[in-house]
Amino acid sequence: MPTFELGPNQYGKAETRLVHVERGAGGDRLTDLNVSIALRGDLAASHLTGDNAAVLPTDTQKNTVYAFAREFGIAGSEAFAIRLAEHFVAAQPSIHEARVTIQRYPWIEIDGRHSFQRAGGEVRTVTVHHGHHGTQVVSGVSGLVLLKTTDSEFHGYLKDRYTTLPETRDRVLATSVDATWRTASGFTDPEPARAALIEAFADTYSHALQQTLFAMGSRVLERCPDVVEVKLSLPNRHHFLVDLEPFGLDNPNEVYFAADRPYGLIEGVVRRDGVTIPQEVTWTF
Amino acid sequence: MPTFELGPNQYGKAETRLVHVERGAGGDRLTDLNVSIALRGDLAASHLTGDNAAVLPTDTQKNTVYAFAREFGIAGSEAFAIRLAEHFVAAQPSIHEARVTIQRYPWIEIDGRHSFQRAGGEVRTVTVHHGHHGTQVVSGVSGLVLLKTTDSEFHGYLKDRYTTLPETRDRVLATSVDATWRTASGFTDPEPARAALIEAFADTYSHALQQTLFAMGSRVLERCPDVVEVKLSLPNRHHFLVDLEPFGLDNPNEVYFAADRPYGLIEGVVRRDGVTIPQEVTWTF
Amino acid sequence: MPTFELGPNQYGKAETRLVHVERGAGGDRLTDLNVSIALRGDLAASHLTGDNAAVLPTDTQKNTVYAFAREFGIAGSEAFAIRLAEHFVAAQPSIHEARVTIQRYPWIEIDGRHSFQRAGGEVRTVTVHHGHHGTQVVSGVSGLVLLKTTDSEFHGYLKDRYTTLPETRDRVLATSVDATWRTASGFTDPEPARAALIEAFADTYSHALQQTLFAMGSRVLERCPDVVEVKLSLPNRHHFLVDLEPFGLDNPNEVYFAADRPYGLIEGVVRRDGVTIPQEVTWTF
Amino acid sequence: MPTFELGPNQYGKAETRLVHVERGAGGDRLTDLNVSIALRGDLAASHLTGDNAAVLPTDTQKNTVYAFAREFGIAGSEAFAIRLAEHFVAAQPSIHEARVTIQRYPWIEIDGRHSFQRAGGEVRTVTVHHGHHGTQVVSGVSGLVLLKTTDSEFHGYLKDRYTTLPETRDRVLATSVDATWRTASGFTDPEPARAALIEAFADTYSHALQQTLFAMGSRVLERCPDVVEVKLSLPNRHHFLVDLEPFGLDNPNEVYFAADRPYGLIEGVVRRDGVTIPQEVTWTF
Repeated sequence: MPTFELGPNQYGKAETRLVHVERGAGGDRLTDLNVSIALRGDLAASHLTGDNAAVLPTDTQKNTVYAFAREFGIAGSEAFAIRLAEHFVAAQPSIHEARVTIQRYPWIEIDGRHSFQRAGGEVRTVTVHHGHHGTQVVSGVSGLVLLKTTDSEFHGYLKDRYTTLPETRDRVLATSVDATWRTASGFTDPEPARAALIEAFADTYSHALQQTLFAMGSRVLERCPDVVEVKLSLPNRHHFLVDLEPFGLDNPNEVYFAADRPYGLIEGVVRRDGVTIPQEVTWTF
Repeated sequence: MPTFELGPNQYGKAETRLVHVERGAGGDRLTDLNVSIALRGDLAASHLTGDNAAVLPTDTQKNTVYAFAREFGIAGSEAFAIRLAEHFVAAQPSIHEARVTIQRYPWIEIDGRHSFQRAGGEVRTVTVHHGHHGTQVVSGVSGLVLLKTTDSEFHGYLKDRYTTLPETRDRVLATSVDATWRTASGFTDPEPARAALIEAFADTYSHALQQTLFAMGSRVLERCPDVVEVKLSLPNRHHFLVDLEPFGLDNPNEVYFAADRPYGLIEGVVRRDGVTIPQEVTWTF
Repeated sequence: MPTFELGPNQYGKAETRLVHVERGAGGDRLTDLNVSIALRGDLAASHLTGDNAAVLPTDTQKNTVYAFAREFGIAGSEAFAIRLAEHFVAAQPSIHEARVTIQRYPWIEIDGRHSFQRAGGEVRTVTVHHGHHGTQVVSGVSGLVLLKTTDSEFHGYLKDRYTTLPETRDRVLATSVDATWRTASGFTDPEPARAALIEAFADTYSHALQQTLFAMGSRVLERCPDVVEVKLSLPNRHHFLVDLEPFGLDNPNEVYFAADRPYGLIEGVVRRDGVTIPQEVTWTF
Repeated sequence: MPTFELGPNQYGKAETRLVHVERGAGGDRLTDLNVSIALRGDLAASHLTGDNAAVLPTDTQKNTVYAFAREFGIAGSEAFAIRLAEHFVAAQPSIHEARVTIQRYPWIEIDGRHSFQRAGGEVRTVTVHHGHHGTQVVSGVSGLVLLKTTDSEFHGYLKDRYTTLPETRDRVLATSVDATWRTASGFTDPEPARAALIEAFADTYSHALQQTLFAMGSRVLERCPDVVEVKLSLPNRHHFLVDLEPFGLDNPNEVYFAADRPYGLIEGVVRRDGVTIPQEVTWTF
């Protein structure tokens, strides 16, 4: 029988749902998180023989999330993710690297006391990689849906035998922003980055969603001196002008069909010039 | 061979996605709708023999949605749904009744000109039934997620052999509001009803989600004189206090696990006294 | 202040996920259920004053599901749902009616011993209503996706100003079957009913999805003497023939675009002639 | 103003839904695909100035999918993905690399003629990377849900201050298999690989899901001589034994609660010894 080799591997508890309430005289503070952990290290025995002596159970990881929320509070997703990642590596010699990803669901205060309304689809994200390479923090936003009703063109593109798309000088442009950004070290307040994304989407006269992407990434770099790199994944949520001519009607950019699938998907990185970007730790499977 | 009978039946185009832009000097107005239509009438032949002479194709219904958006504009979901429902019954002798359901996705203006951000999970709804019985309009809101960190108790309930739940004098109460309301005739501005729901959830000291439900329905009736009936479907989104004692920690109502399933589901109707409620038209299958 | 009235109301635990393993010498038997309970009765006090003396907590309902699985085993979704519904009404004077809905996820045996593969999207359903009116059992299937590549036409329909759909003598017909059926009393093996639905979809030459719906319902009534009524909700999952002419290609019913939205939705009831159908208990909100 | 740099970027049409019918005397053959395309190349101008001269519109990519289905038929997802990827790079000098990902939804023949039933949740996948590096083909399966009722233990793991999980000598083990595999060159029939995954899950006596993962990967390598590497992502779908003691009942591994979140997530690669694995092309954003 041939022998086989264990390649890259990781394990952890995914999607631990933690809601933390900081009680205060001036009203409660609510933090609503979805925490996912992945660990790497001396895990070969567990795979090869089922010997779990080096395995910290995922159940324990979940417990740690809840206990740390009480022991240390939650000063922010970034700090909480860093604390967790550092803990697993420091506490267990068999664990060499940790990745902690947190999704944060925003809530809106209703009465300034103890009532809240969930803000909706937009989610704030952070991923921390910690290990022998140091600590990397990548913050972001996901599901931020933006639309502009004009100031978007698309023409001058390649044509081949399979091209039927008419050029347009005025279209609706809509996307659901999935963005992440990193600093050279540490992390920075995500609010200015988020605001820059929205602002650049709105005020960029667009000849391509690619152009809008670069403008959005550049705006973040302009506004956030600590940020050295921005990644954007922008689905082009097509809004097709409906042909009303069969009904004897014109359609002066007024009535649109919002399509589900297929959709364009534009993805890119915008970087600060002359800054060395650390090699990204990708643990994607 | 025995013969069989066609019972209640209906058909129509579901989930036509319409985005309408009203261009204006002071900025564009954006309306984002998901329109579902169901028709009833002389449809036996189509079922029994495949004779479609009385069938208005669902594709035509979709076209009508888009054409009406251009011909008449969209003054509001309610008015648009009524117009569509009346049209199908008036235009086709074979169609006797129409139900038009519209989901409206709210957007937030970014720049006061032509850029918008989708407001998130909450959806506004309206269902219009039109036919020989007249016209009924039911407005509502769906997916409005609310949470309060205190002022909620639950005790004094029935105990039996299968009861293990401890009584509580202080718990987190969270729900995703699915509410509809109707007027005696016509319809009314949905904003005060929505505001009343949120306000009553926040300021009601709750001994049961049922009590909160009744308070929310009552508040709508207080604030909206035209509304005669409110229906509420409130999932109890359980937030369980995590037991941190194994880790030598207390948990003074600070750290919670937000559970997915199972969940309580509390549903009820609150009505204005002494008002005759018209028999509801239910087309549910 | 005006007074308001509590209308119809119900409450219960939704989506209790129960997996039951019956251990056997000849291999294990696996039952995978999602159980939802709704109760009605003397529940006004809970709504009006927060007095829960008549309320059996939803947590207790969940416990009862698990305990009953051990005490009585699960001979089938129908019997298990009936047992639960009868229990709540019999055990608590304040509870007058119970509705128990069970979704069953089918699994396929792999090794005839203890390994199983989930069968996929199709779900088996049953809803039991129990109370002073007696007991009604409605069985069904949900998410059974069927497609035929030919033997489907659609023409001869109404045309109006908004009609653009070309008539067709050969189209793809696809749907996701959501069907329920009832007997005059008790319940019957769901397998012949399910088989009849699939068979009738396949062998009916269709001039309308309505015709296919009636054929499917009729086939169930033919094959299942105990069944007196069948309800069907059939989305028309449109498969549009792609226009390849711009590329110098014909498309002899070979290449299709499977659309998501909008979709036609055809719904109807097929009944046995001369049989009195009990008034359905609808608890829909 | 500082200048910024465009880093890695790609674009393409995602989720083109193609259904292809091959008509035959002995019955039709149905292929149901979801095709996603991403292209890389000389795309800086589009980002920096909105000059789209090097951009092949995503709409054209969609058209190409449909046209190729007619021109060349679909001999299999792998061959179809390769043909598309090679086309974009060969046809457009500005496009240097292409990634084509196809999800295939299996259908079951009903009548051997033209009627089909969708097989359910399991999806077959293939990703082709084509460019200057050559062509890599990665095949796989996603959403294959497996469960075993016994022959699974978990003990001997690390304990720390946050550990509460009791050791177990007999538990339910369930997962939803997400697996991909690659050959040294070209591709191979995915059926033996899929069968090996199921077989190894079923017959491996498990002391950890990690051990099961390695056994599953190894079995694919044993059975498929062309395969050099297998990647597995296995969520641990926890089935917790319900504590029935409060109700005076034992629970001899019979009644389980199937939890949604959180879940363990075990991921790993199993490789053939002594085989050089080409550097993977990751285009993940």
